[in-house]
Amino acid sequence: MSMTGVLRPGHCSLRVLDLEAAVKHYTEVVGLIETDRDEKGRVYLKAWDEQDHHSVVLREADVPGADYIAFKVDSKATLERLSKSVSQFGCKVDYIPAGELKATGERIRFEIPTGQHVELYAEKKRVGNAMGDINPPPWPDGLKGMQPTRMDHWQVHGMDLDGTVELFTKVLGFGLSERVLDGDRLMAAFLTCSTKPHDIAFIRDEELQDRFHHVAFYLNSWEEVLRAADIISKKNVSLDIGPTRHGKRTNDLLL
Amino acid sequence: MSMTGVLRPGHCSLRVLDLEAAVKHYTEVVGLIETDRDEKGRVYLKAWDEQDHHSVVLREADVPGADYIAFKVDSKATLERLSKSVSQFGCKVDYIPAGELKATGERIRFEIPTGQHVELYAEKKRVGNAMGDINPPPWPDGLKGMQPTRMDHWQVHGMDLDGTVELFTKVLGFGLSERVLDGDRLMAAFLTCSTKPHDIAFIRDEELQDRFHHVAFYLNSWEEVLRAADIISKKNVSLDIGPTRHGKRTNDLLL
Amino acid sequence: MSMTGVLRPGHCSLRVLDLEAAVKHYTEVVGLIETDRDEKGRVYLKAWDEQDHHSVVLREADVPGADYIAFKVDSKATLERLSKSVSQFGCKVDYIPAGELKATGERIRFEIPTGQHVELYAEKKRVGNAMGDINPPPWPDGLKGMQPTRMDHWQVHGMDLDGTVELFTKVLGFGLSERVLDGDRLMAAFLTCSTKPHDIAFIRDEELQDRFHHVAFYLNSWEEVLRAADIISKKNVSLDIGPTRHGKRTNDLLL
Amino acid sequence: MSMTGVLRPGHCSLRVLDLEAAVKHYTEVVGLIETDRDEKGRVYLKAWDEQDHHSVVLREADVPGADYIAFKVDSKATLERLSKSVSQFGCKVDYIPAGELKATGERIRFEIPTGQHVELYAEKKRVGNAMGDINPPPWPDGLKGMQPTRMDHWQVHGMDLDGTVELFTKVLGFGLSERVLDGDRLMAAFLTCSTKPHDIAFIRDEELQDRFHHVAFYLNSWEEVLRAADIISKKNVSLDIGPTRHGKRTNDLLL
Repeated sequence: MSMTGVLRPGHCSLRVLDLEAAVKHYTEVVGLIETDRDEKGRVYLKAWDEQDHHSVVLREADVPGADYIAFKVDSKATLERLSKSVSQFGCKVDYIPAGELKATGERIRFEIPTGQHVELYAEKKRVGNAMGDINPPPWPDGLKGMQPTRMDHWQVHGMDLDGTVELFTKVLGFGLSERVLDGDRLMAAFLTCSTKPHDIAFIRDEELQDRFHHVAFYLNSWEEVLRAADIISKKNVSLDIGPTRHGKRTNDLLL
Repeated sequence: MSMTGVLRPGHCSLRVLDLEAAVKHYTEVVGLIETDRDEKGRVYLKAWDEQDHHSVVLREADVPGADYIAFKVDSKATLERLSKSVSQFGCKVDYIPAGELKATGERIRFEIPTGQHVELYAEKKRVGNAMGDINPPPWPDGLKGMQPTRMDHWQVHGMDLDGTVELFTKVLGFGLSERVLDGDRLMAAFLTCSTKPHDIAFIRDEELQDRFHHVAFYLNSWEEVLRAADIISKKNVSLDIGPTRHGKRTNDLLL
Repeated sequence: MSMTGVLRPGHCSLRVLDLEAAVKHYTEVVGLIETDRDEKGRVYLKAWDEQDHHSVVLREADVPGADYIAFKVDSKATLERLSKSVSQFGCKVDYIPAGELKATGERIRFEIPTGQHVELYAEKKRVGNAMGDINPPPWPDGLKGMQPTRMDHWQVHGMDLDGTVELFTKVLGFGLSERVLDGDRLMAAFLTCSTKPHDIAFIRDEELQDRFHHVAFYLNSWEEVLRAADIISKKNVSLDIGPTRHGKRTNDLLL
Repeated sequence: MSMTGVLRPGHCSLRVLDLEAAVKHYTEVVGLIETDRDEKGRVYLKAWDEQDHHSVVLREADVPGADYIAFKVDSKATLERLSKSVSQFGCKVDYIPAGELKATGERIRFEIPTGQHVELYAEKKRVGNAMGDINPPPWPDGLKGMQPTRMDHWQVHGMDLDGTVELFTKVLGFGLSERVLDGDRLMAAFLTCSTKPHDIAFIRDEELQDRFHHVAFYLNSWEEVLRAADIISKKNVSLDIGPTRHGKRTNDLLL
């Protein structure tokens, strides 16, 4: 478990070709909740049990993909400290003022060796999970779709896998929970900054940088995975792979 | 989530009236694994997916109960720092050298305001979960009983609830995830040093100090809770309360 | 398994003190679907995966309880045959013409030794489960509440338990799947006319006749039982007993 | 639901290349229980919650496959009646005396239009499910492998699909619960003689007769399907398709 101040995946900005179709997909099929929109046309969403203002930002664009992924850190002091460390590692660090994303404090952004743009931030407005703090029920009424409780992790691909793993483990304090080797060569690395099996997965791509494979959302049980698969079938959503187990289920590996 | 260095519940020492009957209960009904015994007659056990040498220590005695509960911290430096802080808070701190418990480094021990003896330690031998690190299966063969994956939390009772909560939150860095109030009076406090809903629960007792209510072990699903209840029924184990939901299931509250 | 022609529980008529409050409870909490109303003010409901027009009929009355419970038989010939057999057994049999209940064919009704009014019928309009017959999805959209798939069984109480069991086993062809004995005395009998563990449970009452204890609806999994318990908690519904296992789960006992 | 006297799938005789390896697979991986062996070298097995002496018979042979599949009927009278009906339909009916299979009464055997040998029998010794009849626990101790509760259905392939469906529906009283059409042409038929979604599936094969695709065993939950998949992975068993949903889950369709 990281004690260096990176807490968890916080948000990602996704480019979609048709904004309203995407909002409909993320709210009615995936089951996220729209929390806000801004003057740039961006739509903010969160999973129902998340406390912060948003975990997914959608914006319309001509080419689909991810603009950036962002991790929450534990304080502004950590944000300043890591800004220097990342810069010393050799990444150019950009500063984004508070408010550029709604309800979100200042962010730093840098390009990692596999090509992705990664952000860190310390502050985001806490909007709660709609159930209040006094005798809350186990879940709220009115949920739709797959009803994940929270965003869980991302998988991204790029060429300089070794460089990215070095940045995340030596500078950002992540731990390596699993890896795939081809002989001695690292082909995939699953990293965690928490007690989760992984918070981000990096996969080697021999030819392309900055590929975004998936954002994963957390379901509470294997039965909810079946229900999600039913919804995929009912809604004719394109499916890559059916229900399966992969990775380790323990969450204490790195303590 | 605590960033002050206390990682998680690590072990507890339980007094039992009949050692071999207790070992049989903990291995065949609960489903822990015996990992060691020592010259004092103590038996060491762990849940199957725990990596460290033990999480439960049993010893035979005339009066049942708990000798102490112990939390793992992230380093010897943290151990030293917290030793001073706890002492400054007003608790007498005893030092226990490495090796007093098998496979375990040096510990500090102090009595908290509700009467329990609490330990901190930084080092315990990693014995693994019997599946190795290379392409491990999802679970090992030969499991018995309820098959919990790990020890989860304790619930203890005592008179000076406010004092204990102050110690755990202000000195040890725990967060308050839930509480029960009788008017303005705190009757129960659920505290966490991690991303779990709680790592320890303290309940006010008006008359008695140092009561140990339960140690809880983690099951992976509601269906495993049913299976555990079946085992309780099959083995005629005394049961306090059947399957139920209590507390919040979110684990992101305190970030 | 009965080969004498009684297929399964078909419907029950329940008296409620406030019709619209009851409809709201059965549709929004239990999750039945209202299929019809009639000129007598009765409301017809069914579970979502039932094919026939209704399984529950509600009517407003000054005293709550059950008017009658009804079993479906496989043909009008069986209905005629069982009408004679029940009459020969000593029960007065009333004939109710088709259409008295909407979408339902002719029924016979008789009082059983424990005091309940029991009906048999062979025909009820098939309205389907709203998903059609061509490539149906696994479940329909828009379900509410606990979402049981079908009505499962009833439990009723009365004084002449032996008489009722004789009627159901010797005349109606039910099998005894479980019983509770107090010494040699039968205290409870669980009877089945199908491959289900029981289709009806009769309990001895020393003082009262014609008591209706419950109608049970079928949920697909233990996780759905937890979800139903959550709904009971969220809606502040009065609860008799929490999630538990009782009875045998095998369904092949009587073949 | 069939009221014509065929109760359910009863047993199948499978040819295997290595008997002891097959017994090990069926007992330790699948989790059946060996109940008997005979002087011909055949091994008898049953699932743990089945009451009758066996549901699977293994025999060593040079070519793998199924010798025959057998359905249980409700009485010897039904056996005689169906023997005549099947013969009138045009199938040659062979008589096999009681005792040819251990613990099993007389059987009739005939070849169906898709080439399989199908048996009917009325009597098999009831050996129980090892838990007794008085206050039985929900499941017995000592289960291994996937722990199915019972054999569920078979899928077989052959050329004259229409002929086989006519035999099963018009002579044996099965109902059609699902079918696959290619235009007007029947490609697959799922038939039931009970309240199960299907008891046997017939698939058209354009070139080969008497193909045996699979025997299915029943697991109690989707979580047990995951556990079975874990076992397949752990034991390196060849896998055709991972956990998925197919077919309808309703079991009331044909009443």
